[in-house]
Amino acid sequence: MRIIGIDPGLRRTGWGVIDIEGSRLGFVACGTVMPSDKLALAARLAEIHGGLSAVVAEFKPDEAAVEETFVNKDARATLKLGQARGIAMLVPALAGLAVAEYAPNQVKKSVVGAGHAEKAQIRMMVKVLLPKADFKTDDAADALAIAITHAHGRTLAAR
Amino acid sequence: MRIIGIDPGLRRTGWGVIDIEGSRLGFVACGTVMPSDKLALAARLAEIHGGLSAVVAEFKPDEAAVEETFVNKDARATLKLGQARGIAMLVPALAGLAVAEYAPNQVKKSVVGAGHAEKAQIRMMVKVLLPKADFKTDDAADALAIAITHAHGRTLAAR
Repeated sequence: MRIIGIDPGLRRTGWGVIDIEGSRLGFVACGTVMPSDKLALAARLAEIHGGLSAVVAEFKPDEAAVEETFVNKDARATLKLGQARGIAMLVPALAGLAVAEYAPNQVKKSVVGAGHAEKAQIRMMVKVLLPKADFKTDDAADALAIAITHAHGRTLAAR
Repeated sequence: MRIIGIDPGLRRTGWGVIDIEGSRLGFVACGTVMPSDKLALAARLAEIHGGLSAVVAEFKPDEAAVEETFVNKDARATLKLGQARGIAMLVPALAGLAVAEYAPNQVKKSVVGAGHAEKAQIRMMVKVLLPKADFKTDDAADALAIAITHAHGRTLAAR
């Protein structure tokens, strides 16, 4: 069973692919799609679509999990995030994958054990759970954390 | 020159296609994509993608215009709108079209002549400007109004 986790954002969309074998997790790949901020909005969304589509085509995940972007008080920023998130959910759906959603505090609880963990704690625990993970951005680490959260949920549900 | 206007929404995404010949506008087609609200979010986004892709493939517009969804105080609603809007901008961008954005008050000013027009006034003016328009929803009428706004802007720029 292979899972892709996605942490959507208009500037940086992180993605991480892991395998589950029984209760063991294995790192497959991770990365960050960074559309040029000189492009118009529609072209940036097309770059996120192209980047994620290439990842799904290459690694052929069975299921997807996307962060339920935190709803903040800046409506304009929320609208931007929503646009990127629409693409992040569309790409796996078009490939026929079920797409689960997890709130940031669910991800933190599942990976670190506390709902209000710092970014550094998440990075550290992702590294403990997936020693081979070579993430270069917080967004890629977050995407792996989202995939781990989905894996934990599946394992619990299977018991 | 053929223009598609899109009024994005998770429940109803309106679309309208018009032709410009000189300073004359001609109605081509309009409609509404309504994904089942029983579907999961990702599947609803995939339905919007599929519906708009079919429209773009059938009517082959040269340019697109999308409403810059009003940023309201309900962050959760804004996030949902953003997701639908991401798809509405992606589809024409993937088809190679330039995608313009217009705020609702720009559309009202361009079509009705006042920035705070009522829905009924917009419907009436769309019908005056495009007598053959057979819109069945406010969303389709709004989409035609967005296309008209883009046409007006092009005509002004050409003078």
